[in-house]
Amino acid sequence: MAAPLDFYFDFSSPYGYLAAQRIDALAARHGRAVDWHPMLLGVAFKQTGAMPLTEVPLKGEYSKRDFDRTARYHGIGGFRMPSRFPIPSQAPGRLVTWLKSTEPARAVPVAKALYHAYFVSDRDISAPDVAADVAAEAGLPRAAARAAMDDAAVKDAFRREVETALARGVFGSPFVFVDGEPFWGFDRFEQIDRWLVTGGF
Amino acid sequence: MAAPLDFYFDFSSPYGYLAAQRIDALAARHGRAVDWHPMLLGVAFKQTGAMPLTEVPLKGEYSKRDFDRTARYHGIGGFRMPSRFPIPSQAPGRLVTWLKSTEPARAVPVAKALYHAYFVSDRDISAPDVAADVAAEAGLPRAAARAAMDDAAVKDAFRREVETALARGVFGSPFVFVDGEPFWGFDRFEQIDRWLVTGGF
Repeated sequence: MAAPLDFYFDFSSPYGYLAAQRIDALAARHGRAVDWHPMLLGVAFKQTGAMPLTEVPLKGEYSKRDFDRTARYHGIGGFRMPSRFPIPSQAPGRLVTWLKSTEPARAVPVAKALYHAYFVSDRDISAPDVAADVAAEAGLPRAAARAAMDDAAVKDAFRREVETALARGVFGSPFVFVDGEPFWGFDRFEQIDRWLVTGGF
Repeated sequence: MAAPLDFYFDFSSPYGYLAAQRIDALAARHGRAVDWHPMLLGVAFKQTGAMPLTEVPLKGEYSKRDFDRTARYHGIGGFRMPSRFPIPSQAPGRLVTWLKSTEPARAVPVAKALYHAYFVSDRDISAPDVAADVAAEAGLPRAAARAAMDDAAVKDAFRREVETALARGVFGSPFVFVDGEPFWGFDRFEQIDRWLVTGGF
């Protein structure tokens, strides 16, 4: 089996959420797996000078319309902008980082549950207690999940993941590498699809 | 015939160039015309705080790769990043504004010739003399074209076009309105295509 796709996303990113609904199926069509990497857009924004999309004059209003329209275009039901947006996403990022090293088979289902909690159920997953609730609903021991988010070693591992992302040139969410080729944005999924067929174009 | 699409673009915008290769055919498939509106990204950037894409850390390197890859993906041959980039695009913007009011049938062919001169032939169309050469090659009287770019009334008309664009919420290039619905980016052309079929989704 060829190398997995590297899928970078921020839990506070609407386009990341939409991409998360499609990335596994896209990769599977080409016999590929996906390595899910939570990251922190805020850290990337310090380098690029960007700010949260919805806070940019002119672009902010447009982006909110585009999130909804793009979800509808792709038939992704249930999406709605959360009451609190954006959120710091350290807690869910740490939780998934912890799972990747302890119970890797649970990492993606829990990541999807966290994204769903935020962008469909409007739950503030930036709160470690809420993130732990979501993990428990997904079948994890709640106390262990809650403790992981305060664990210095987990925090450190997530920090290194974010640093690695930046070192690879990740500046937005979603961001996907296919055999080293970088693709930024859910709207590059069609290029990814062709790249997976042709090995480049 | 239904209302034309409003197509906003900056002559210095690579994605605007790529969009310009497709917008007329896209609209025509749905029985629509296109109203071409040159604008100035620099003026919009003052409001959004954005800077030229290629100058942004991390994003800049990616964007140059993406311009080329997106051209190849869409089978748009000949595209190459100009030696000088970005450029101030007042001269070609004024030229097209002048044509729209004096010889509207020549405006789009000349706009396409200007874009081709910059993104295929690597000619610096920010220079009024070069823009006038391109207009002359496209069949316009060179002296009149050259004079138009220095005409205060033409400058004023272009300034008003740019102000109107901003007032409508245009913050990037390309930017298209379909019956009032805003679409930013060449990568929204598929949504535009469906919107033109369904009248909304």
